[in-house]
Amino acid sequence: MNKNSEIDNTDLKILSLLMQNAGLPYTEIGKRVFVSGGTVHVRMKKMEQMGIVKGSQLLIDPAKLGWDISAFLGVYLDKSSLYEEVAADLETIPEVVNIHYTTGIYSIFAKIVCRDTGHLREVLHDKIQKVKGIQRTETFISLDERINRSIPLDEEG
Amino acid sequence: MNKNSEIDNTDLKILSLLMQNAGLPYTEIGKRVFVSGGTVHVRMKKMEQMGIVKGSQLLIDPAKLGWDISAFLGVYLDKSSLYEEVAADLETIPEVVNIHYTTGIYSIFAKIVCRDTGHLREVLHDKIQKVKGIQRTETFISLDERINRSIPLDEEG
Amino acid sequence: MNKNSEIDNTDLKILSLLMQNAGLPYTEIGKRVFVSGGTVHVRMKKMEQMGIVKGSQLLIDPAKLGWDISAFLGVYLDKSSLYEEVAADLETIPEVVNIHYTTGIYSIFAKIVCRDTGHLREVLHDKIQKVKGIQRTETFISLDERINRSIPLDEEG
Amino acid sequence: MNKNSEIDNTDLKILSLLMQNAGLPYTEIGKRVFVSGGTVHVRMKKMEQMGIVKGSQLLIDPAKLGWDISAFLGVYLDKSSLYEEVAADLETIPEVVNIHYTTGIYSIFAKIVCRDTGHLREVLHDKIQKVKGIQRTETFISLDERINRSIPLDEEG
Amino acid sequence: MNKNSEIDNTDLKILSLLMQNAGLPYTEIGKRVFVSGGTVHVRMKKMEQMGIVKGSQLLIDPAKLGWDISAFLGVYLDKSSLYEEVAADLETIPEVVNIHYTTGIYSIFAKIVCRDTGHLREVLHDKIQKVKGIQRTETFISLDERINRSIPLDEEG
Amino acid sequence: MNKNSEIDNTDLKILSLLMQNAGLPYTEIGKRVFVSGGTVHVRMKKMEQMGIVKGSQLLIDPAKLGWDISAFLGVYLDKSSLYEEVAADLETIPEVVNIHYTTGIYSIFAKIVCRDTGHLREVLHDKIQKVKGIQRTETFISLDERINRSIPLDEEG
Amino acid sequence: MNKNSEIDNTDLKILSLLMQNAGLPYTEIGKRVFVSGGTVHVRMKKMEQMGIVKGSQLLIDPAKLGWDISAFLGVYLDKSSLYEEVAADLETIPEVVNIHYTTGIYSIFAKIVCRDTGHLREVLHDKIQKVKGIQRTETFISLDERINRSIPLDEEG
Amino acid sequence: MNKNSEIDNTDLKILSLLMQNAGLPYTEIGKRVFVSGGTVHVRMKKMEQMGIVKGSQLLIDPAKLGWDISAFLGVYLDKSSLYEEVAADLETIPEVVNIHYTTGIYSIFAKIVCRDTGHLREVLHDKIQKVKGIQRTETFISLDERINRSIPLDEEG
Repeated sequence: MNKNSEIDNTDLKILSLLMQNAGLPYTEIGKRVFVSGGTVHVRMKKMEQMGIVKGSQLLIDPAKLGWDISAFLGVYLDKSSLYEEVAADLETIPEVVNIHYTTGIYSIFAKIVCRDTGHLREVLHDKIQKVKGIQRTETFISLDERINRSIPLDEEG
Repeated sequence: MNKNSEIDNTDLKILSLLMQNAGLPYTEIGKRVFVSGGTVHVRMKKMEQMGIVKGSQLLIDPAKLGWDISAFLGVYLDKSSLYEEVAADLETIPEVVNIHYTTGIYSIFAKIVCRDTGHLREVLHDKIQKVKGIQRTETFISLDERINRSIPLDEEG
Repeated sequence: MNKNSEIDNTDLKILSLLMQNAGLPYTEIGKRVFVSGGTVHVRMKKMEQMGIVKGSQLLIDPAKLGWDISAFLGVYLDKSSLYEEVAADLETIPEVVNIHYTTGIYSIFAKIVCRDTGHLREVLHDKIQKVKGIQRTETFISLDERINRSIPLDEEG
Repeated sequence: MNKNSEIDNTDLKILSLLMQNAGLPYTEIGKRVFVSGGTVHVRMKKMEQMGIVKGSQLLIDPAKLGWDISAFLGVYLDKSSLYEEVAADLETIPEVVNIHYTTGIYSIFAKIVCRDTGHLREVLHDKIQKVKGIQRTETFISLDERINRSIPLDEEG
Repeated sequence: MNKNSEIDNTDLKILSLLMQNAGLPYTEIGKRVFVSGGTVHVRMKKMEQMGIVKGSQLLIDPAKLGWDISAFLGVYLDKSSLYEEVAADLETIPEVVNIHYTTGIYSIFAKIVCRDTGHLREVLHDKIQKVKGIQRTETFISLDERINRSIPLDEEG
Repeated sequence: MNKNSEIDNTDLKILSLLMQNAGLPYTEIGKRVFVSGGTVHVRMKKMEQMGIVKGSQLLIDPAKLGWDISAFLGVYLDKSSLYEEVAADLETIPEVVNIHYTTGIYSIFAKIVCRDTGHLREVLHDKIQKVKGIQRTETFISLDERINRSIPLDEEG
Repeated sequence: MNKNSEIDNTDLKILSLLMQNAGLPYTEIGKRVFVSGGTVHVRMKKMEQMGIVKGSQLLIDPAKLGWDISAFLGVYLDKSSLYEEVAADLETIPEVVNIHYTTGIYSIFAKIVCRDTGHLREVLHDKIQKVKGIQRTETFISLDERINRSIPLDEEG
Repeated sequence: MNKNSEIDNTDLKILSLLMQNAGLPYTEIGKRVFVSGGTVHVRMKKMEQMGIVKGSQLLIDPAKLGWDISAFLGVYLDKSSLYEEVAADLETIPEVVNIHYTTGIYSIFAKIVCRDTGHLREVLHDKIQKVKGIQRTETFISLDERINRSIPLDEEG
């Protein structure tokens, strides 16, 4: 199932455990996959060097901090070929938390987080729609989020 | 900017540092925000209990593990009111890594990860489109991903 | 310009003044259109009986009362012919403040007012999308409102 | 339910009564909410100063005055960022009675009132589509209007 | 240009003249195409028998008779295969003046003529949308009509 | 039902008969509506002068003359305001047999008649899409035509 | 560039030559890629057994045989999950020459070839739209075809 | 069924057999249609000279050679009239294997073959979207292909 020949089942089991709990101590992980904590450390270093593991990320509930609105933006560009320039500009807008270049009716798929509709207006009208190359945007407000995994969890390990 | 009166600037600075590097030791964080490591620990516990911090997540590059295709799915339901049932079923499909209930033309916005188009066919045709209540799906392949943040980084702390 | 032969210019001028300020005393209106306050009263009674004037409405800023989200809903019905039943059900939902039966891609155009996205989710998922005959809805958040008139102001009077 | 701490239940009850009948005398309102007419007056002044109450509006039936066509316009702009300029121009067109800046496929949502299709042609072709920055418009004729409230009525007071 | 070998240039010239003026006397036509009036008569009979000429139609300006609204309807069927049944039902509605079965997003393209928006509501809601097999309709009001020819005029004759 | 006070029931009955058969002799019409043939003549002259009757049109079956393809075109303009210029250019193309300025997603709705797909390509690519102001077109091939009336037949007379 | 380790450059060069001219004799191919005709034969057998080469196909110009209309069909299914059954039914319709299961707004993308619009009507209405599970179809007439290759030609060999 | 009078049933039967198996020897074909192999040769030469037979094409399974992604592109042009120039540019891109000029929402319908999503990104962003005149593209990944015929097989011969 895994095409990367430098990665074995033990690596995948370690990843799987850390994906469920990024703070799990290496000694605990070692016990569960029947290797030493040191081996877990060595394997993780290898996977970091290979670019498989890019780091870890704190999971935060934006609503609890007063960020009431999470929204996806479908972005139409004047021309699809402007992706690089537009994405670079979008990255500098703090409220833009994710950017994808996609096939389909939208050239760019972005995610933004705002405090309320006044803030949403400011982000859309004064920041995003002012970016050169953006023709118009469609907004999909997220009303509920389920699961948020990096890769399919169950099939590995 | 922050409506939650139980949270102060020190809390936000701690969050901001951990959002950039979830593995940063508390003593190091303490130094940077001029409190003790113990205080960082207390603050994080408080924010975990308040549900602000929900945990941490390993960041993985799916392509490096042979997951070549990341795609967003716009899902049309037979009726929008079926969201709860459909989302519960989608959660059991390992390749579905994210689910949102959204306003707009799609009732559900999901993200899937697949190995190749053969696998994509299997996931769409044999798993997702078999879910009761799903009428049809539109697929947007992600060709590039930029930044992936939980909340706006620069405005806090 | 006005096809209703029972209505003269004085009537239209009275309407025009009251449309700009519904609380203007009849004596004041009388002075401006060169009739007595009693005549204004008579004219208004006539126009009420003719159904031209349907009453008056307090203008309120929803955001100032904590209603952060004003949104238009484009509603798709299972069949367009269900309008009467669906509209009757929508009327009983307090957050629905306006309903139109329209030509075009949507069968019904409604306006809703909500406190925040949690409330929006509740209104859409638990109330509106539960209405029998509604297939799905598209949401357009209002980020700014300009002018709100009943009829073209300048061309009359 | 109401986030504004300067507003109490009595205020909301007064609003609720006036929203149903903007012409109700303050003494009558006072009786119903168990305060004096003077208190009603004081409360209304306070809410006007806070910007909660923006005035009152005569409710008119456009069809009875010969305005046969009420229509919503979905407006596509050359670029979404042109909203401010375009809205300012639209405001000067008498037949435009309402303007919203919206998320979704249209940048602007406007309401117009016309006498007949000849007039509709004139308003669309000679006035609105001549506005600089408007690319094209889609027209949704209103065939029926139900309820027209400012805010959810039943949940307050 | 004309694949029908039973039709010659004289036939096409006769058609061309009558298409511009269906009331032109045969003797006058004969003069212009250098045959006798009797020959014109024979040719027309032949073309009627071949089904080329199906009759003639009075051209009326609907607006002058109080039919203010001419509209095209794009009709979505529950299933495209229902065309025959639905078309038969639409034919019995007097306000439907033209019906086409088309490729494209609409299964049926119809034209209707109504007196005003009240009548349009009645035709759409009480007649057309009640037809079994029709899911929903989109209405395009005609604001202006140019030329109305049966076949390309200039290339024949 | 008829708002035009200069038109009476006899006029409408005459129209109705001629709409079903434009070649019916006036004496025959007179018999059926209980007036003289001369009166029919006078009435028709009056309605021609009022612009109600604009002439008559030969009904031809395009397919029988080798025009295999009848198609509707939804035309997108660079800007909707270009209608007048574009319509004037379209009129000069012989294969364009009907033009409407419409509300809705298309600015112009046109009908064309072509011999085969090679001809359709020539008309679309070399003629219509070369017209200045036309951005793109969508083609709906007519596969079947039912009834073709000018105005609702049954409700008059 | 080629992930299949059983295939070498000589194989790809042979394929490349045959893709440009499927009738080229093996001895001629051998000369160009510096192997014997027998080797070409062996390699082709191997690639046939591996399923890389599935056969060869006569290239025919449908228009020259009187098939005037080539069209793509975007097919909407009642449910996307019905693909297998619907595709099996479509295969039995002679005029359907190609079928794809696709991501995007259409579940199935098919290609059909017809003689004229009468035949197109018959194929769509009497055959395709009668298939159980098909809700509706959108037709895109091909007006011109350029290049028709199986795989990218220039990058191999 | 066949409008081309220079083609007889024997020709069509020969075509039909070769369409099913382009490598079938002429002597074998001759046996089946009751003519000599030489006659088959003469007939094929004639059909080649008439442009009916344009050659033959090797059928290859792209996936077996590592081309994992087959996709259709719906191409929006800045203006539909740019087809000729854009098609000429697309032809020079090796991964573009088929190009059609179509009626409908897309001006051009193209097919591309790519190795993986990284390659797809390169082809779309660096090659296709850089073509002058292309505004944007929509991608439909093919997940399964059934039958691939040139013309309807069963109705001929």
